[in-house]
Amino acid sequence: MTTTTNSPRSEETKKYGVVGTRPIRHDGLDKVIGAAKYGADIQLPGILHGRVLRSPYAHARIKSIDTTKAEALTGVTAVVTSKDFPIFSSTAIDLAVTQGNPRLLAEHIMAAGKALYIGHTVAAVAATSPHIAEQALGLIEVDYEVLTPVLNLKDAMKEDAPLIHDDLTTYFKLERFARGDDTGAKSNIASHIQHKLGDIDKGFAEADVIVEREFSTQTVHQGYIEPHASTATWAGDGRLTIWTCTQGHFAIRSSCSAILDIPESDIKVVPTEIGGGFGAKATTYLEPLAAILSKKSGRPVKIVMTRKEVFEGTGPASSTLMRTKIGATKDGKITAAQLWMAFEAGAFPGSPVGGATLCATGAYNIENLLVDGYDVVLNKQKVQAYRAPGQPQGAFSVEPVIDELATKLGIDPLEFRLRNAVKEGDRMPNGVPHPVFGVKELEEAMRDHPHYQTPLAGPNQGRGAAIGYRWQGGQASSATIAVNTNGTINLITGSVDIGGSRTAVAMQAAEILGISAEDVYPTVVDTDLVGYTANTGGSRTAFDTGFAAIRAAEEAIRLMKARAALLWETEEGDVTFDHGTFICGKTEDTLSFKDLSARLMRTGGPISCSVSTNSPGSGPIIAGNIVDVAVDPETGKVDILRCTAFMDVGTAVHPAYVEGQIQGGTVQGIGWALNEGYFYDENGGMLNSSFLDYRMPTALDVPMIETVMIEVPNPKHPFGLRGVGEAPIIPPLPALAIAVSNAIGVPMRHLPLTPDVILAALESRGA
Amino acid sequence: MTTTTNSPRSEETKKYGVVGTRPIRHDGLDKVIGAAKYGADIQLPGILHGRVLRSPYAHARIKSIDTTKAEALTGVTAVVTSKDFPIFSSTAIDLAVTQGNPRLLAEHIMAAGKALYIGHTVAAVAATSPHIAEQALGLIEVDYEVLTPVLNLKDAMKEDAPLIHDDLTTYFKLERFARGDDTGAKSNIASHIQHKLGDIDKGFAEADVIVEREFSTQTVHQGYIEPHASTATWAGDGRLTIWTCTQGHFAIRSSCSAILDIPESDIKVVPTEIGGGFGAKATTYLEPLAAILSKKSGRPVKIVMTRKEVFEGTGPASSTLMRTKIGATKDGKITAAQLWMAFEAGAFPGSPVGGATLCATGAYNIENLLVDGYDVVLNKQKVQAYRAPGQPQGAFSVEPVIDELATKLGIDPLEFRLRNAVKEGDRMPNGVPHPVFGVKELEEAMRDHPHYQTPLAGPNQGRGAAIGYRWQGGQASSATIAVNTNGTINLITGSVDIGGSRTAVAMQAAEILGISAEDVYPTVVDTDLVGYTANTGGSRTAFDTGFAAIRAAEEAIRLMKARAALLWETEEGDVTFDHGTFICGKTEDTLSFKDLSARLMRTGGPISCSVSTNSPGSGPIIAGNIVDVAVDPETGKVDILRCTAFMDVGTAVHPAYVEGQIQGGTVQGIGWALNEGYFYDENGGMLNSSFLDYRMPTALDVPMIETVMIEVPNPKHPFGLRGVGEAPIIPPLPALAIAVSNAIGVPMRHLPLTPDVILAALESRGA
Repeated sequence: MTTTTNSPRSEETKKYGVVGTRPIRHDGLDKVIGAAKYGADIQLPGILHGRVLRSPYAHARIKSIDTTKAEALTGVTAVVTSKDFPIFSSTAIDLAVTQGNPRLLAEHIMAAGKALYIGHTVAAVAATSPHIAEQALGLIEVDYEVLTPVLNLKDAMKEDAPLIHDDLTTYFKLERFARGDDTGAKSNIASHIQHKLGDIDKGFAEADVIVEREFSTQTVHQGYIEPHASTATWAGDGRLTIWTCTQGHFAIRSSCSAILDIPESDIKVVPTEIGGGFGAKATTYLEPLAAILSKKSGRPVKIVMTRKEVFEGTGPASSTLMRTKIGATKDGKITAAQLWMAFEAGAFPGSPVGGATLCATGAYNIENLLVDGYDVVLNKQKVQAYRAPGQPQGAFSVEPVIDELATKLGIDPLEFRLRNAVKEGDRMPNGVPHPVFGVKELEEAMRDHPHYQTPLAGPNQGRGAAIGYRWQGGQASSATIAVNTNGTINLITGSVDIGGSRTAVAMQAAEILGISAEDVYPTVVDTDLVGYTANTGGSRTAFDTGFAAIRAAEEAIRLMKARAALLWETEEGDVTFDHGTFICGKTEDTLSFKDLSARLMRTGGPISCSVSTNSPGSGPIIAGNIVDVAVDPETGKVDILRCTAFMDVGTAVHPAYVEGQIQGGTVQGIGWALNEGYFYDENGGMLNSSFLDYRMPTALDVPMIETVMIEVPNPKHPFGLRGVGEAPIIPPLPALAIAVSNAIGVPMRHLPLTPDVILAALESRGA
Repeated sequence: MTTTTNSPRSEETKKYGVVGTRPIRHDGLDKVIGAAKYGADIQLPGILHGRVLRSPYAHARIKSIDTTKAEALTGVTAVVTSKDFPIFSSTAIDLAVTQGNPRLLAEHIMAAGKALYIGHTVAAVAATSPHIAEQALGLIEVDYEVLTPVLNLKDAMKEDAPLIHDDLTTYFKLERFARGDDTGAKSNIASHIQHKLGDIDKGFAEADVIVEREFSTQTVHQGYIEPHASTATWAGDGRLTIWTCTQGHFAIRSSCSAILDIPESDIKVVPTEIGGGFGAKATTYLEPLAAILSKKSGRPVKIVMTRKEVFEGTGPASSTLMRTKIGATKDGKITAAQLWMAFEAGAFPGSPVGGATLCATGAYNIENLLVDGYDVVLNKQKVQAYRAPGQPQGAFSVEPVIDELATKLGIDPLEFRLRNAVKEGDRMPNGVPHPVFGVKELEEAMRDHPHYQTPLAGPNQGRGAAIGYRWQGGQASSATIAVNTNGTINLITGSVDIGGSRTAVAMQAAEILGISAEDVYPTVVDTDLVGYTANTGGSRTAFDTGFAAIRAAEEAIRLMKARAALLWETEEGDVTFDHGTFICGKTEDTLSFKDLSARLMRTGGPISCSVSTNSPGSGPIIAGNIVDVAVDPETGKVDILRCTAFMDVGTAVHPAYVEGQIQGGTVQGIGWALNEGYFYDENGGMLNSSFLDYRMPTALDVPMIETVMIEVPNPKHPFGLRGVGEAPIIPPLPALAIAVSNAIGVPMRHLPLTPDVILAALESRGA
C-alpha cells in the first residue's frame, strides 16, 4: 500500500496499463534545450517595452500626477495612470460592496485615489526601449499626501485604527450556513469567518487537560524563478490579445474583462510556459497595464518585472496571529477545540484565512469546535495564494498543541492522533461529512516507519512529527481529443502545465483508450481554442482536467464503437471495448484501437470530440512529516538530519511527479519554517527584496527527502486520484517547530526559526 | 431569385438571421494592417535559410553529386540530396505501382535517379544567411547524363517515345465501374479514363447535323501572389514542426509522413495565412527539404521560393489536346457526343483529366456518350490543381461545338442549351443520376438578361455565351465550439481561410445559434489542435466545414437544452430551441442563447463540443458567361466591352464573398483565354518565368464584371449552400473564344488568343 521514492510501481496500479508508470514528460525536451517559450520570450514586430512606477509610500493620497515631461521624452509612446481606466470614472459600481467589486480589482493593479502599499502601481510607461521607459518613470511627478500606514495585524484590528478603505465593512460568515451578511461596521476587518460545532464550553468542561497557546507566522514569498511577464496587443478592431505567464489564462481573461470593462470574448489570452507560480500567478498584475499602453501606443507592449518588483509589487503568503486551545481526556480523546486566527490580507481583502479555518483541525474528529478567522487589510502587498493557501499556518497553530497535549497525557503523539483521527462520515468544521481518505493509514505508516522507530543519536537533536490536512473542491475543465489515423491522439486542454500535468492528464486519456502515454500528443492552448478551463491551482489539474480527458476519451470510444459496428455489420450495442480492444459480441472479432483508427477515414471520416466538465472535486488529502534536526548551540543554526514525507496520494498517476510534488512542497515548507520572511522597515518598506537577501533553502540546506506514498484510492475518480500538489507544504512548519522545540527544550511558536531567534530562545532557557 | 452585384439580400435568404448578410470578415483587420502572418513571416530564434538547387536539364540521369565544397563553405550547416531521404533506399516499395506510391511523391520534391524537368530539385542547402546558401548552391557539382526530353503531348503519346518513368504502365479505368486495372503496357500514358453511356454509333446515326473539332489549351499558372514558403524544425525528440502556407496542413502532414517515413502524429503542421493558392498550394514542395535540413543542422530552417522558382518548380495547369464530336437533330436535340482529351501531367502522373471527362458535357443530357481521357507524363513541371481542375479546358472543347451546332441549326445557342439541359434524375457521364440544380434557371437567366437582349453596336465586335459545369464531392472537416459566458462562441476549425471561409463558416454556426456573425470568434488551428480536416479546395470549405460547424452548433444547443431544463426543473425533452431562444414547453418560459450562456457556470460548468464530419459533398454547380469583345484589326488586341457572370450559388451565405469568387474566377478565366501561357524553349526551359513576362490580366484589362447569382437551394445542405469557389473560372474560356470567333469571323480553337494569334487568324481570313 505504500511506495517509497523511485520504487517500482505499486500493487494498486498494476491493474492499469499506463496509470502508475513513469513516462518521460511530453514537454521535457523543449524545456531542457531552452526552446520552451516563457513570459519574457514573447517577441512581436514593433514591440514596445513597458515599465511601472510604484509608490514609495505605504499609505498616501495621490493628489495629482503630472506625466507631461515623461510623455515628451523621445521614444515614449504612452503613459498610463488611473485616469486611463474607464472603471474609475464609472458611477455604476457600488463602492460599499467589496466582494467581487471590479473597482477593487482595478485598484489593485493601478492605485486610484490612494497608494496602499510600497510598490503599489501609480503609473506605467511604454517606450521603444526599456531604458527610455525607465528614464521616463523618473520624469513622472506625483504629488502625494502621506498618510499614517497600518503595518501589523494588531494595529489594523484596533477599533480606532486608520481605515485603509473608507467604505470597507466587515462581512460575517458563519460557515454552517450558506451565505453571510455585511455587519455594516467600518473596519479593516474585511471578513470574519466562523465554524461552530457542538458546545465548546461543555467540551472543555469534559477535558482532563487543556492546552492553549499563541502562534505567529511571517510573510513569505512563493519564490518562483520566473518574474511576471506580460505582453498585450490591442488591435484596432477592439480585440485584445495577451501573452502572459499565468496559472490560468481564462482567469486573466475574466479579470481583464472586469478591469478594462470589455467583453471576455474580445480578449484572447495565450498562456506561455510558466517558471513557477505556486498560487501567485493566478491573478492579474501587468496584463491590463500592457493592454492600455498598447491601446494608446498602437503597438504591442511587453512588461517584465524585476525581482524587486516581484517581491514588492506582487502577493506573498499571509502573515498571521493565531491562538489555539484544545482539551482532551486522560485516555486521549479530544473533547473541544477553539481557534482564533487573524490573517493579513494586505491592501485589499482576500487572505486565505478560510482555508485555514476549514482545514487546521480537519484530520481530527472534534465534536465541540469553534473557529474564528479574520481577514484583515493593512498597508502591505495584497497577499496571494501560496501552495495550500492558509493551511501551513493553520496546521502550525494546531499540531504543536496536539503534540504538547499528547506529551502531557503520556501518549505517543502519533498514537494520540490515531485515537482522534476522522473517519468517513465524521463532520468537517463546516458540518459536511468526511468522505473516505487515508488519515488512519497515513498515521499508521508514520508510526510504523523505521524513521519514527529509530532513536535519535546525538546531543542537541530533536524530532518532530506532524500532519497536514486540506480539502479540495472541483472546478471546470475542458478537453478535446482528435484521433489520428495511426492510432495516436491529439489532446487539447486549457490547463497551464506547472508540475507535469500535460503528461499526468495524457496518461489518463491513454489509460481509457488502451494506448501508451507517448501515443498522446498533449497541447495547452489559448482561451480561443478550448472550452473554459479554470486555473491550474488548488491541486486540481491532474484530477479535474484528467476527468475531462477521461470523459473525452470515453466519448471517442463511443464514436469508434459505431465505426466498428459498421465494419462488422452489427449494432453499436453489440460492440464492447476492453483495454484497447473493440470486440464484436456476435462474432468475437476484435479490432485494436490502432487498427480501428486506421480505418476511420473509410468508415465515415475522422473522429474528434470535446467535453467540458465540472469535476466533483478531489476532496480531502492528508500529508505528514517526520523530521530530525540538530541545533548548533553556538550559532543557532538548524541542520535537518533526516526528513521523511508521507502522503495519501489516492493513486499516483505518475509516481515520479508525485514524488516531485512531495519533495518540492516539503522544501518550501522547510524554507517557511526555518529561513524565509519579509523584513520591513518602520515605514512598511521591504528590506530584503532580492534572492540574495530573501533566504530560500538551497540544495545545501536540505537532506534527501524520502517520500512515502500511501494509496487509498479516491472513490470520486475513475482511477482513484487525489490532488497532490499542495498538501506536502503543510506539515514541515509544525514538524520542524516541534523538532526544534524538542532539540532545545524551548517551545518555538513564532516563525521563522532563524539562528538569531533560536539563539534568543537558548538564552531565555539559560535565564 | 437572382441577385446582382452589391444588391440587397435576396428573398430566399430573408428567412435567415445571418445567412445572406454581408458582415465584415473576422480576419480583415489583421490582413489590412499587415499583422497577419504569411509563410515568409515566420521567424524563430537561430533560424537558418534554405535554398534549392534545380536541374538545368529537362531530362537527365544524375550520375553523381559532390557536395564537399558546399559543405565546407563557412556558414553552411547542411546540404541534402536524395541520399538523405531514407525512402529512396527502401526496398519495401513496389516501384511498379505508381498510384499513391510514396517514392514518386518523394521524387517529385527531390530528384533521385533522374531529373525530369527543368527546375526539378536536385539538392538543397541550409546556411546562416540566404546569400551564403545561394553561394553554396554554386559549389555543388552535379554530374548529369543528358537524355532526350519529351516536351509535348503528341511526342509523349507515341509508341516509341522515350519513357519518362521506366516502370510506368497505363492504368485503365472505365468510370462506370468502381475500379480500374493496370494494362501492363509500358508508356508515358499514366492512365486512360473512359465514360460510356448508350451507343454513340446509333446516336450519331440519328443526328441531322454533326460537328467535330479539335482544340488545344496552353500551360497556365495559378498566379498567386505569395511564393511558397516553409519553415521546419525537427526537434531532438523526433517531433517535426512545420509552418507553411498551404491549402491543407493535414495534407502536408500526410505527404511529409509518407516522404520522410515517420508517423503522422510526429508531425505538427501550422498553417500560416495564405496569399493565394487556387489549388496549387495543396501539395508539398519545400516542407520535407526544410525538415531534413533542420534535422541535419539542429536548427529551424526556412525556405522561401523566388518567383522564378514558383514558375519553374511548382505545378501549373495542364496543357491539353482535345477533340469533340457532337451530333443533334434538326429540332435541336443532342443525340450523341464523343470526346477525346489528352492532358499533360508533367513529370509525374496526376493531371486533372478526370475532372474534364466527368464535367465537360455535364450540363447536357446526352444519352449516347463516349469520353476518353489520357493522363500523359512528359518532361515538364508536374501539374497541379487550378480552380475547377480540368474543367475550363473541358468546357473549352465542348461549348464552341454546341454554339456551332446551334448556329447551324438556326437555333439560339442558349435556347439550344435549354432544350438539352440536364434535369434531376438524368445520368451523369459516370451513370450517377443528377440531383436538383439550377441549369435551366441559369440558362433562362442568361437568355433573358438585358446583356443578352442588347444588340452589339459596332464593327469588329462579337458576343459569346457559354456555360461551365462542375461536380463537387465532400471531404472531412472538424469543428470545435466553446460557449463563452457572454453568449459569444469560439469556433475552432482546421480549414485554411482563402476566400473568407472563416466568416462564411462562422455565419452558419451563428445562424444555428441565433447569434450574430460578430458573436463568433473563429480560429484556424494547426494539426495538433482540431480533428482531421481535408484541404481548403474543391469549393468545399464553406459547405463541408460549414457542415461541421452546424453540427457542432447543434450539439451545443443540445447540451444547453439540458441546462435550461435544469433551471426550469423540467425534462430535457420539454425544452425547444427556436431562433436563438430556449423555450420551456410547460411554462412557456424563455431564455435567450445569451442569457443561458451567462448561467452555464452555475448549472454544471462550461460547454464545449467538437465534431468531425464527412460531408455528402455539395454536388453539381453551374456557371455561365456572356461576354462582348471588340478586336482591333490592326493589332489583334481584344478589348472586353461587357462581361456578365452567372452562377447558381444555391444560397449565397455571404453574397459579397460569392460575388468576389465570381469576379475573381472570371478574371482568371479571361487571363487564361486571352493572355497567359508558358513559353518554352526547345529544351523545355520556360522563357517567361516572371510576372513581367507572364501576362496576367491587370485592372486595366478587365471591365466591371457584373454578377448574377441564381439561388436554387441545394437540398443537401441545411441552408442550401453550393460550393462557389471554382465554377466561375470555367465559362470565360469558351465564351471568349466564341466572342472573338464571332468578332473576326474565324473560329478560334487554340488558346491563348493573344494579339499575334488573332493577327494570324485575320491574315488567314484574308487569304
